Amino acid sequence: MTVFEMIINGDIPSTKIYEDDVCIAILDIAPRAKGHTLVISKQVYPTIADAPTETLAHMMDIVKKVDVKMREALGADGTNVIINNSPASGQEVPHLHIHVIPRYKDDGISFFPPSMKYEDGEASEYGRKLAL
Amino acid sequence: MTVFEMIINGDIPSTKIYEDDVCIAILDIAPRAKGHTLVISKQVYPTIADAPTETLAHMMDIVKKVDVKMREALGADGTNVIINNSPASGQEVPHLHIHVIPRYKDDGISFFPPSMKYEDGEASEYGRKLAL
Repeated sequence: MTVFEMIINGDIPSTKIYEDDVCIAILDIAPRAKGHTLVISKQVYPTIADAPTETLAHMMDIVKKVDVKMREALGADGTNVIINNSPASGQEVPHLHIHVIPRYKDDGISFFPPSMKYEDGEASEYGRKLAL
Repeated sequence: MTVFEMIINGDIPSTKIYEDDVCIAILDIAPRAKGHTLVISKQVYPTIADAPTETLAHMMDIVKKVDVKMREALGADGTNVIINNSPASGQEVPHLHIHVIPRYKDDGISFFPPSMKYEDGEASEYGRKLAL
């Protein structure tokens, strides 16, 4: 059982901002910005690919509400919404959760690593490989 | 008109991996990792909060397919799924798009800035402000 199940079960405390039958929203205890929120599915789905469409749709509705609330209540100028899938991506708890991080003009936070360039022909090769 | 509308209209080229009535998926021309894909709504919604539930739900379904494909076709070990909302968050084009970035064990890419700590009582204060 992961820490998220223990939080959902009420076995360990959390600062909860929302709860319904499908998900909870709590403050991340190691925030990247104050107010950093996690929207966590109540059912355990390891990653996004495991979660049903309806669950994700509902969680995204809650994410939208958190985004609006961060602007209204914290004066945030924007948000980052992030889902890390699998340990290689930085996912620390194997239970689907969506990060919502409040952002402010010139807050100095940097998320994206530097961009890289494709060699000649490489982009179309990746495009062929990834075609759905 | 932004670059995304010009891409959707076919006025400027892109490496497209998917298209339907609701969204397109193309390679980011400034990838953070090769294969970095953008799932872009066809309708212009500036940020997540502007997009209807059904549109987001559908886009997340496509994101799930991109995640699976990145693992199968590129051998990725995980993905980061990122939505930046408003310029303060790093959003460069004011037209809803979801980044899907393939990740590999020990690829050295770092997204998250360092975490910070709440002062005593500060987490519950943020929790009260953000309660939905």
